[in-house]
Amino acid sequence: MQMTRKVVETRDGLPFLISGSGTLGWDQVAANLVEPGENVLVLQTGYFGAGFADCIKVYGGKPKVLKAPYGSHIGLEEIEVALRTKKYKAITITHVDTSTGVLSDVKAIAATVRRTSPDTLVVVDGVCSVGSEELKMDAWRLDVVTTASQKGLGVPPGLCILVASPRAIEVFEARKTPVTTYFASWGKWMPVMRAYDNKTAAYFATPPVNLIRAYHASLSEITKLSPSLDERYRIHKQVSRRVKALADQLGLSLVPKDTAYAANGMTAIYLPDGLVASDVVPRMASKGITIAAGLGDAKDKYIRIGHMGTSVVDAERGDIDRIAKSLQASLNEAKNAKKAVVEETP
Amino acid sequence: MQMTRKVVETRDGLPFLISGSGTLGWDQVAANLVEPGENVLVLQTGYFGAGFADCIKVYGGKPKVLKAPYGSHIGLEEIEVALRTKKYKAITITHVDTSTGVLSDVKAIAATVRRTSPDTLVVVDGVCSVGSEELKMDAWRLDVVTTASQKGLGVPPGLCILVASPRAIEVFEARKTPVTTYFASWGKWMPVMRAYDNKTAAYFATPPVNLIRAYHASLSEITKLSPSLDERYRIHKQVSRRVKALADQLGLSLVPKDTAYAANGMTAIYLPDGLVASDVVPRMASKGITIAAGLGDAKDKYIRIGHMGTSVVDAERGDIDRIAKSLQASLNEAKNAKKAVVEETP
Repeated sequence: MQMTRKVVETRDGLPFLISGSGTLGWDQVAANLVEPGENVLVLQTGYFGAGFADCIKVYGGKPKVLKAPYGSHIGLEEIEVALRTKKYKAITITHVDTSTGVLSDVKAIAATVRRTSPDTLVVVDGVCSVGSEELKMDAWRLDVVTTASQKGLGVPPGLCILVASPRAIEVFEARKTPVTTYFASWGKWMPVMRAYDNKTAAYFATPPVNLIRAYHASLSEITKLSPSLDERYRIHKQVSRRVKALADQLGLSLVPKDTAYAANGMTAIYLPDGLVASDVVPRMASKGITIAAGLGDAKDKYIRIGHMGTSVVDAERGDIDRIAKSLQASLNEAKNAKKAVVEETP
Repeated sequence: MQMTRKVVETRDGLPFLISGSGTLGWDQVAANLVEPGENVLVLQTGYFGAGFADCIKVYGGKPKVLKAPYGSHIGLEEIEVALRTKKYKAITITHVDTSTGVLSDVKAIAATVRRTSPDTLVVVDGVCSVGSEELKMDAWRLDVVTTASQKGLGVPPGLCILVASPRAIEVFEARKTPVTTYFASWGKWMPVMRAYDNKTAAYFATPPVNLIRAYHASLSEITKLSPSLDERYRIHKQVSRRVKALADQLGLSLVPKDTAYAANGMTAIYLPDGLVASDVVPRMASKGITIAAGLGDAKDKYIRIGHMGTSVVDAERGDIDRIAKSLQASLNEAKNAKKAVVEETP
């Protein structure tokens, strides 16, 4: 519990560690903080923002989606205008949308919200960012940060991690309508989490003990003094610049239109004309490197490379060099294979 | 997917394998099969039946609880009378309520339901029974069987397993009101599960890959030809009789009032007067054996010993002998410690 607080840099936030995927974090927000009919401003910078909006609707909230142009982010002015036109219970920000690799400026957005509409709860989906992108829950005055075990925290998937600010808990406790979820209900989980905090036992549902142990081990590593969290973020940025430079060098463009808002824990790269993701992903796999195809409508046209956690912080592993070499080789192989097919066609 | 079907003995049931605990199975039933205002008959043989009723209420269903006297089961006549007085969308049965060790006769109850109220869906909470108690989904015409990875299936916790009959899926698809959960929504998961069935990929939320691998390994073991499932159930019964005889021999009584409805994968045993669970559980732990205190109001007065899965089927491990010896020794130690305290008191 204490280490979870450390990672998102909060003193008094209440962590909820529940068996489930990152998606369960959306359910917790939509079901516990938003009451039916209340408005939520959803910033959509890719596939995952759309999912969050869908989830809010399921629980009776009214999502208003601000959609960024593909590969771009959402300007602060646009957010400010939206906040002035209507009263929003909450705003949701996908810190890094892993479908596009777009990084949102959570600090600036949160400041804008606090200035323009102070009662609006600031909710950050940090599934793809916690541990690899700078995130300061208290300093930036965020109300909810959700994440999952398998990304920047380097634990096998299956653990949903959410931290709620004291203000968020107050809003939850002041609800007028009953919560309409059972498994994701803070009312059910809060006594359990408070008991964990006091190092006593309580039961609501079986915790994923193995994952919690792995999580504990990984957080012990991440929250140790050296490298500090800030150093970790700096190293992620450094490595990210290398990967982005590599794409540039190979003549490839990034999905994010500007590196100013490109994620530091992953890179989404358009493939050269004539190649699709399935030409490259298996070739990388045969070299021992798992990368992913795109996600969404353009999913064949680009690839997504993760560079977060140990692979990045432990430079001696040489993971990034291997990614660079393998990517270059895979692209060449794929191009040659296509050329061969073209030449054989009479 | 196929092995999951094998374990619960169904040909056409659709498995939902989702990251979460067994409790998530209740949410799936309450949110996908029951519409607001519909009646559900809940058979309560301990703590877990009460939880299921609570969950149904959260999603707008109207649970009617038939509560067994503590340590007893619910008679078929009582169930039949209840089914005749009102129309029930579903009936829920806790196959083994691990808080009391009471085993419900699912086969007979399901037959009664099918005869008395054929449209009522038969839902079995098999969290503590699948893999250790006989359960034949198709032959007994059950509509939903839910379980979790960590009990009879011998996998670390974190995977919720639910199998829905084609009839249950039809009922779900004929809903008039929208489903009010996102993470537990069959509408979201069904395409993913059908894709798994066709061995293609689909995404809704990150699957707990490590657990699914462990699950695969464990099911490969359980569904192999020898011992067959029926033999496994027989071995569980045999071992259970030994544990129950041991309690008898030690002069202790069981929480279930009759061994005819006592679970075969665990035993709940009242402690002798003057001893509480915390006198015995740590002493067993120091001998390398994890047992549990009771659950619910009388939780200090009895202990719960699990005997399911490999510990039981692989007799060469000698686990049951060690349990017997350790229990006897722990009880003696605890009694002597109490006596010493009494003698020291002037």
